[in-house]
Amino acid sequence: MRLIALLAFAIALLFPVRVSAEDGYDLWLRYRALEAGQQDRIRPHATALVSEESDPTIDRIAAELGTALGAMLGAPPPARRDAPAGAIVFGTPKSPRIAALGLPLGKLGREGYLIRSVAIDGKPVTVIAGNTSIGALYGAFRFIRLIQLGEPIDRLDIADRPRLDLRLLNHWDNLDRHVERGYAGQSIWDWQKLPGFADPRYTDYARANASIGINGTVLNNVNSNADILTEPFLKKVAKLADIFRPYGIRVYLSARFSAPIEIGGLKTADPLDPEVAAWWKAKADEIYRHVPDFGGFLVKANSEGQPGPQDYGRSHAEGANMLAAAVRPHGGVVMWRAFVYANENPDDRAKQAYSEFQPLDGTFADNVIVQVKNGPIDFQPREPFHPLFGAMPKTPLMMEFQITKEYLGFATHLVYLGGLWEEVLRADTHRPRAGTTVADVLDTPVRAGAPTGIAGVANIGNDRNWSGSQFDQANWYAFGRLAWNPDESGHAIAADWSRMTWGDDPALTSAITGMMLRSHQAVVDYMTPLGLNHLMATGHHYGPGPWVDDLPRRDWNPTYFHDADAAGIGFDRTRTGSNAVAQYAAPVARRFGSLATVGDDYLLWFHHVPWDHRMASGRTLWDELVVRYDRGVAEVAAMQQAWAALAPKIDARRHREVSDFLAIQREEAKWWRDACIAYFGSIAKRPLPAGHAAPPHDLQYYKAIRHPYAPGN
Amino acid sequence: MRLIALLAFAIALLFPVRVSAEDGYDLWLRYRALEAGQQDRIRPHATALVSEESDPTIDRIAAELGTALGAMLGAPPPARRDAPAGAIVFGTPKSPRIAALGLPLGKLGREGYLIRSVAIDGKPVTVIAGNTSIGALYGAFRFIRLIQLGEPIDRLDIADRPRLDLRLLNHWDNLDRHVERGYAGQSIWDWQKLPGFADPRYTDYARANASIGINGTVLNNVNSNADILTEPFLKKVAKLADIFRPYGIRVYLSARFSAPIEIGGLKTADPLDPEVAAWWKAKADEIYRHVPDFGGFLVKANSEGQPGPQDYGRSHAEGANMLAAAVRPHGGVVMWRAFVYANENPDDRAKQAYSEFQPLDGTFADNVIVQVKNGPIDFQPREPFHPLFGAMPKTPLMMEFQITKEYLGFATHLVYLGGLWEEVLRADTHRPRAGTTVADVLDTPVRAGAPTGIAGVANIGNDRNWSGSQFDQANWYAFGRLAWNPDESGHAIAADWSRMTWGDDPALTSAITGMMLRSHQAVVDYMTPLGLNHLMATGHHYGPGPWVDDLPRRDWNPTYFHDADAAGIGFDRTRTGSNAVAQYAAPVARRFGSLATVGDDYLLWFHHVPWDHRMASGRTLWDELVVRYDRGVAEVAAMQQAWAALAPKIDARRHREVSDFLAIQREEAKWWRDACIAYFGSIAKRPLPAGHAAPPHDLQYYKAIRHPYAPGN
Repeated sequence: MRLIALLAFAIALLFPVRVSAEDGYDLWLRYRALEAGQQDRIRPHATALVSEESDPTIDRIAAELGTALGAMLGAPPPARRDAPAGAIVFGTPKSPRIAALGLPLGKLGREGYLIRSVAIDGKPVTVIAGNTSIGALYGAFRFIRLIQLGEPIDRLDIADRPRLDLRLLNHWDNLDRHVERGYAGQSIWDWQKLPGFADPRYTDYARANASIGINGTVLNNVNSNADILTEPFLKKVAKLADIFRPYGIRVYLSARFSAPIEIGGLKTADPLDPEVAAWWKAKADEIYRHVPDFGGFLVKANSEGQPGPQDYGRSHAEGANMLAAAVRPHGGVVMWRAFVYANENPDDRAKQAYSEFQPLDGTFADNVIVQVKNGPIDFQPREPFHPLFGAMPKTPLMMEFQITKEYLGFATHLVYLGGLWEEVLRADTHRPRAGTTVADVLDTPVRAGAPTGIAGVANIGNDRNWSGSQFDQANWYAFGRLAWNPDESGHAIAADWSRMTWGDDPALTSAITGMMLRSHQAVVDYMTPLGLNHLMATGHHYGPGPWVDDLPRRDWNPTYFHDADAAGIGFDRTRTGSNAVAQYAAPVARRFGSLATVGDDYLLWFHHVPWDHRMASGRTLWDELVVRYDRGVAEVAAMQQAWAALAPKIDARRHREVSDFLAIQREEAKWWRDACIAYFGSIAKRPLPAGHAAPPHDLQYYKAIRHPYAPGN
Repeated sequence: MRLIALLAFAIALLFPVRVSAEDGYDLWLRYRALEAGQQDRIRPHATALVSEESDPTIDRIAAELGTALGAMLGAPPPARRDAPAGAIVFGTPKSPRIAALGLPLGKLGREGYLIRSVAIDGKPVTVIAGNTSIGALYGAFRFIRLIQLGEPIDRLDIADRPRLDLRLLNHWDNLDRHVERGYAGQSIWDWQKLPGFADPRYTDYARANASIGINGTVLNNVNSNADILTEPFLKKVAKLADIFRPYGIRVYLSARFSAPIEIGGLKTADPLDPEVAAWWKAKADEIYRHVPDFGGFLVKANSEGQPGPQDYGRSHAEGANMLAAAVRPHGGVVMWRAFVYANENPDDRAKQAYSEFQPLDGTFADNVIVQVKNGPIDFQPREPFHPLFGAMPKTPLMMEFQITKEYLGFATHLVYLGGLWEEVLRADTHRPRAGTTVADVLDTPVRAGAPTGIAGVANIGNDRNWSGSQFDQANWYAFGRLAWNPDESGHAIAADWSRMTWGDDPALTSAITGMMLRSHQAVVDYMTPLGLNHLMATGHHYGPGPWVDDLPRRDWNPTYFHDADAAGIGFDRTRTGSNAVAQYAAPVARRFGSLATVGDDYLLWFHHVPWDHRMASGRTLWDELVVRYDRGVAEVAAMQQAWAALAPKIDARRHREVSDFLAIQREEAKWWRDACIAYFGSIAKRPLPAGHAAPPHDLQYYKAIRHPYAPGN
């Protein structure tokens, strides 16, 4: 008895009453001390920090290098005026020492960098240089990453520059701090305390973004509120811009098209009304007085109830061009979203963005970029690439990815999006010719000087771990890396992230990247296999609702999207159906349009297929559907097992959090599987294949589940 | 040039790119290493942690002592089976060693403790003992506090027990994580992830509360939602209860009176309907299956639109007693709020709670407690004590304080509430006789075994610093200390908090407590001097709105409360007016009812006073009003100065945060002063006294200010 008491008591001493630092706040900038051998290898190449320049960005580089090297090596290298052997010399050609090196900076542009092992006065040093201090900042973060990843740094010769001009986060943050589709707490923008108080977290946000090359942030929701454009809010916006500026991050705002009425006192927001144009011009001038490097506007117009130029019989181009004229004198851009669909339009929702925008090609002002979601519906677990990519050769198009997991299980599901995005970026548009990928469309300016870009809907909130889960940090990270270079491999990015986030143990990295890479197919399988999509419950999109058929908009109903009946399932987008395939280049249209070539991934996206259709696997479609749902659940179970085995290698708090989340994911994957099989089974009226269990409850049970307080709605 | 660059660069190295631990998360449990001399004095009395028992609470004691002593002394004392010299022996008389000491535990009750320097087997040890392990837990936190405060611990003989039974936080947290009147981010209850994931923060919440003796928490808003009583939410509630239980904290829920209709499918919620009573009984049974030590219900009924027994022609007592019967078999209580007023009732709002509840004295079941706000209106910067205290001698009354600063400038105003609460607790009710304070009413059971209690509306959210500001932590702390002992001094509590939170330097403590103690009068002066109240802007209560007179409820309008006209200002609550004074005991009524004796603090609360009335200061009322407003602003400026001088003694991040908040407070104090003087001046039509500046803008300017996104609404 007393021995047991003592044992329990000894265990109690291990009870973690104080929360340690290892809670995920540090993100991938987790500068833990290197092993002694590694420190010994690095130290000779980090003897001093040397810069001959002084600007706010140079100061941030010095601070970041000091912090990172200090933490990884045990002590920060001293700042020195001379450049001793092993020094890190950073800056731009404004530094006489850097200028004297005659480095080939010409092709690096404004944001590129060069990291090279050179000799200065006969002493070996590492130079980190850019044409601007922002370039040098990106180089410094790359240099830090090399050390985090255990790469040799004694003979460096790296030159890099971003492939896209605009690399932006889109925050769907409301002014009351609610985040639409946010699963990581409230907005990190504490508008009430701004501008008087600036949370130190804003600086860490800027550091994290700069470390992966993100150079812009849209602060407010695309379902926007004109008040963000009023003087009190512009002062708050300016404060954030001041914090972000030294990190190379420009601030953008979502503009509400009807703002001239709501805050301007005008009677109309007609883009062809001179008073309206003048109001926007004056407003832009006012914004630039507060934020001299303001990036421009993002606009959601005539979409899901938002006001827009069509309210006045004007086109999207007329609306966008009017705004573009207002910001043009200041160098601003207008990002005009192509995510539009109308209930009044009986045509296939998947076709509507293309139908509306493609004919406008060539009519947009040159500082307008059309922002297109990756697929034609809405951030589903898997979609074919959007047919607009390649179809508007005279119009700059930028990609809109969704980092936050609106349709992918929220924060508690482990789903690595690097693979999903890679799939889209590498898709062959065949426009103008075979081999032209979506990435090519994005990073090839439509004319000299035309902007290129990519945006990600942020998954950031005031949760301590930023993204609502440890693994969702990887999606923020992967977005930045792909924005910098859309041809990077999702696998390589996952491995880098894992090593910086969890520790640099090869077995750990291999297990974690394995989980991450399988996670995308897993969620597709347990939610929407074989090209199914939009089966989520109403409004919040949490959990399954394939039976929902009573929403006011026809194209909000899951039954619209899966179109299941006694004969089969799937949305016929071939010539016999909506003919959405015709929006793609002919070779793509042929591949998607034929049952023989479409493949399993997009089968039910493009085809209405009989339940007994024989699949490549040899199974019937119905059997294959069940097998996929079960495979998805099994994959989550496999992730749980893999993760459990990593316990000895990972700090307890983060390990526990991920374990608990995986348990939630498994339960919810099973919920998806059971509810969908119960529902589709009620239509297909076929027995489950052998070895696959019937759902434990009847369909009514799943239909009755309600989640009125699911976040992000 | 290069010298300047080097200097800037050296400064940049100090730039805090990583957020250090010193962000306020640790609260007053900030176990920093003691100075060497102090460590040397403590170590001989902390050589080992010894317990012979094993239960979850004993485990938490061991963990907390280990963590605290480990951090303060450099290494935690080992757990030992024997009790060597200098050991800390903790537990209950279940431990043979503690039983053998024959300690006088008899009068300490279930929650009291004794800390004593004794000898066991001839060796000097410190014993921390209670009749239950919860008592020992409170003793352990007291012991830790002694060390934090630098008290000698070599000859201890402390016995203490709480003066009130129920010491509760009331969370006004909604199920979507919005916190009504919350200024610290979202609710810390992440309902979406519960019960699958329990944020480690829940444990720190429990530790913090246990450390100040709080023993219960109402998880959800009094403006409540019946869904909290459904099975899915009860599972989440149970998870929290499991975490809190070892810390002596019971969980309570706000019950919506109409729940039998909303989630029970009944047609009525009439408390005298047997089906309704049976539904609540079954619901209570269900709750207790999930949470065996569930504390009971808090109810806001027939108040501000909430449903209640009066909807069925039944009394508050009939409603409360029906619920009380449901929880009675399980040992639960019902806390029934007296905060009621009705627009239909033309009588002075300040009188309505008394008018409705006082006649019900003696009609409540014995497990009902009536919960009364500290003053008769609503948590104003200063109110006279509520006339119900002392007026219901047969009914247990508990206090409701508001820790969150709804009417006190939100999180960015430094206002220490210890003084406000002390003022109320020490007020003499003269019931039944002179000298019977509000504290006496609270802590004297109305009959043997009748419950006593106090509740505080929590100021806790998911902000990193818990309370929205560093100094608001002091209000959480002070509430706990006063709940344990309502006779403690606000000054002493402030000093303890300051030393544990900011560091144990006498000059620091003196300066900080000085700021805290002056802060209450300061906010009274710059918002609502001389007994004014409820002048806040509509809805969110942020900033001044003394001119508002168009709200649908008469008694929501500031003009109702200040009643200013050309002749004078103030609400006549004497015999010539509403005669609210008559609700107090005769000596109190006489004092409040006479201009000669009421004093400045409550002058305009009870009297309509001519603008030219000569005040004790010799000034006219109008001049005094202006002087008070300016004095309030000046006090904030003085706080800023005092704080600025402390910079060398305080970590940079927290110092900066408080500095920024004080700057906001000063600006807003001036806003209050200017707006109120502009408005009252437009009515009084008198010149400002010499040396007092006119507001910089006209009244229209202040009236036009809008804050649609102010938090907490």
